[in-house]
Amino acid sequence: MTGKLKSTKTTKLSKAKQNVRAIFEPRSITLIGSSKIVEEVGMTSPKLFADVAYNLQTYFEGRVNIFDIETRSTLGKSDLTILALPPQKSLNWAGKAMNTGTKAIIQLTGGFDAAQRAKYFKLALKHHVRVLGPNTIMGIINTRVGLNTTFERNLMPPVGNISVISQSGGVGATLLDWASYYDIGVSKFVFMGDKVDIDDENVLEYLASDPKTRVIAMYIEGIKNGRKFVELSRKITARKPIVVLKGGITQESAQRALSHTASVAGSDEIFNAAFKDAGIIRVGDIEDLFTASVALASQPPMRGKNVCIVSNVGGPAILAADEVAKAELELAHLSEETKQKVQKAYPGIDLINPIDLIADARADRYRNVLKLVLEDSQVDGVMVINMLKSCFFEPEDAKVIPEVASRYDKPVVDVPVGGEDFIKVANVLKGTGMPTYNLPSKAALALRILYEYGRRQC
Amino acid sequence: MTGKLKSTKTTKLSKAKQNVRAIFEPRSITLIGSSKIVEEVGMTSPKLFADVAYNLQTYFEGRVNIFDIETRSTLGKSDLTILALPPQKSLNWAGKAMNTGTKAIIQLTGGFDAAQRAKYFKLALKHHVRVLGPNTIMGIINTRVGLNTTFERNLMPPVGNISVISQSGGVGATLLDWASYYDIGVSKFVFMGDKVDIDDENVLEYLASDPKTRVIAMYIEGIKNGRKFVELSRKITARKPIVVLKGGITQESAQRALSHTASVAGSDEIFNAAFKDAGIIRVGDIEDLFTASVALASQPPMRGKNVCIVSNVGGPAILAADEVAKAELELAHLSEETKQKVQKAYPGIDLINPIDLIADARADRYRNVLKLVLEDSQVDGVMVINMLKSCFFEPEDAKVIPEVASRYDKPVVDVPVGGEDFIKVANVLKGTGMPTYNLPSKAALALRILYEYGRRQC
Repeated sequence: MTGKLKSTKTTKLSKAKQNVRAIFEPRSITLIGSSKIVEEVGMTSPKLFADVAYNLQTYFEGRVNIFDIETRSTLGKSDLTILALPPQKSLNWAGKAMNTGTKAIIQLTGGFDAAQRAKYFKLALKHHVRVLGPNTIMGIINTRVGLNTTFERNLMPPVGNISVISQSGGVGATLLDWASYYDIGVSKFVFMGDKVDIDDENVLEYLASDPKTRVIAMYIEGIKNGRKFVELSRKITARKPIVVLKGGITQESAQRALSHTASVAGSDEIFNAAFKDAGIIRVGDIEDLFTASVALASQPPMRGKNVCIVSNVGGPAILAADEVAKAELELAHLSEETKQKVQKAYPGIDLINPIDLIADARADRYRNVLKLVLEDSQVDGVMVINMLKSCFFEPEDAKVIPEVASRYDKPVVDVPVGGEDFIKVANVLKGTGMPTYNLPSKAALALRILYEYGRRQC
Repeated sequence: MTGKLKSTKTTKLSKAKQNVRAIFEPRSITLIGSSKIVEEVGMTSPKLFADVAYNLQTYFEGRVNIFDIETRSTLGKSDLTILALPPQKSLNWAGKAMNTGTKAIIQLTGGFDAAQRAKYFKLALKHHVRVLGPNTIMGIINTRVGLNTTFERNLMPPVGNISVISQSGGVGATLLDWASYYDIGVSKFVFMGDKVDIDDENVLEYLASDPKTRVIAMYIEGIKNGRKFVELSRKITARKPIVVLKGGITQESAQRALSHTASVAGSDEIFNAAFKDAGIIRVGDIEDLFTASVALASQPPMRGKNVCIVSNVGGPAILAADEVAKAELELAHLSEETKQKVQKAYPGIDLINPIDLIADARADRYRNVLKLVLEDSQVDGVMVINMLKSCFFEPEDAKVIPEVASRYDKPVVDVPVGGEDFIKVANVLKGTGMPTYNLPSKAALALRILYEYGRRQC
């Protein structure tokens, strides 16, 4: 795309900003594809057409029109048009859709050359229609209205408050698989594609003003307009956290088949500085992206570094204390008042942090001690550990944790440490907004990030 | 225990070293407990007695004698005696068992004072009987003979080559839960308890000479005789890897409710130096302990730093390249010969590392390229990435990976990155000895550790 086009876009298309919304919240959709055309480059195929049609018809709560260009000719009007055709045919049908008054287009398929992309952009500009793609392949998901333009049948994450932007189809597919499998509540999912029109900033702006999005999680490989991205992000992160996984810290070296540590670290530090400047929280891998997002989506920020660990086992509590230190947080010093109250209620409990509730602790003991600890002004957040194996704790007992936590403006995370134990407790806590991790290391990371976001908000 | 007892032990009990084996490989077992006695301190209870009896009777392939002291009086002979009674009663019955010629005792229950522990040790010494515990609570597991002295019913990890030693009951229970849930092949599991007789060194010596143990994984909170531990470990690690998770890097500070980073780092560095000296591989958390052990148990060491990534998706391959760099490994430069061969077979594939096999790659393409890459002397190890979502790869295709890998003396690890994708492929690869990870970060850690162990062996 030329510099001239770029500058025109910035001034004129801002009028059409509201049409970005039609990508995510259309009332009516037309999917245009072909039951015959196969084109490997760009991924046009009857199968993709059928799979996307299946997902739209299965989940979308609004009106869906499946338009096969092999059998139909007259296009009706709808808010959102989804295109799954080769480049030239897509351009033709995009033009027709724009003439019928569509507000937005998701161009799933790819294979467009520079001239075709420029033509697409001109069309969009002329009609004030917003275009996501081309080559987004998977398009978008909006769980709340059942909008799913991906070709993965029945892959629908649960409704939640985390919105995900991915600059890579493959990583995006992994994130979607992860969220669906691990029951991570998602609001919107966006596969950016080639960005002929709608870019990261447009999507960020939409998600920033979207009341159903509490956390924005991004996978990015590069930033085109660094200053704009940082300025916009800085505004957003004052109100809503952005968590970023950056791929390609060694991308250059990978491409050159050269692993030159110095240059890698250098270029990566620029991103670190930019993220810091923008108030963006950076994480290290896919799992951390969700560990962080789940915590931010459900818990208040942590206002200080002082963590109290409440556990029914000794060893894992020691590991948890280690992880608190590794995350550069501190073990809270309980106030004398709290100590006395715990002592009075449970004379057998040692009054040091980590607090060992002992293996026979059930719901009542957790409820009472958790309450006392959260009332202590010297405690900024709590990591609860509740094992089942070798303990008396039952999965149902875990319900008291979100019950108590919801009454205080401090973060609480739960660690039913292990394999089967974790699954059993996580199932009980599903939908309660209590972040549940299978290892103290992940819970400590979650608290660390809640602390970082708390500092961002100061 | 006094210094005098300790020194006597070292000289005299070495004769009975072979009896340590009876703990793990008995042909006959007697479990002595009571259907009536409940004693909270030390955990004696009819329930524990019944649960342990259940596991012994359900799984053990040898002769099992359940001996309830409330209804029986004459004790028969067996290789291994398991005791689940309060201290004084345990001592009485331990004496009787020793008189009948038992070779070893697992003292599950605890609550012993110093005098009782000394008495137990004297008894053991006199009869040349080895005692594990007291207060081991869970005792041991030997998967190959179905020996499981824990009270967790039906918690039996699959048979494998990893042996686990835990100094903590709680962390040990978590490790057991983790191994069972994630299908990690285990040979022996040992809960050390109070170590009146058998100590870490005794168990290490046994596992070092145990042909069914390929990797020793330890959770430790402290080392009593540092020099002895380091010297013994150094000998063992020349032939067999030891992986350690050390709990309590902040234990002191935890106990004082003081998070003083300087002192923490100081004391922890002593352990780091000792582990390095001993050739022990140190890991950061429970998951890493198994990530490392699984790789070491099934793959050859990596003889150099050069990793080749073979993937069917671009984005996750970039993340994988990042993780290789973070693990301080290098992306291999493929030789010209390899490049030409790949080029000839698959003209569409870019000849850089990570190698992108493209989304339609199936078993054949993986087989052929993996073979070429493993034959390249500039490649020391391979990380395979095979996504299902948004790709043509089918779970069954993954079988070619261990098939090819087994023909070369270089490590290969597999990353069916994601949630559901991971589970599907991991199920296909179960029992093939191919380490399978859901994230590139874990696979990179695995390769890093295989590299570290390769250096240890030089």
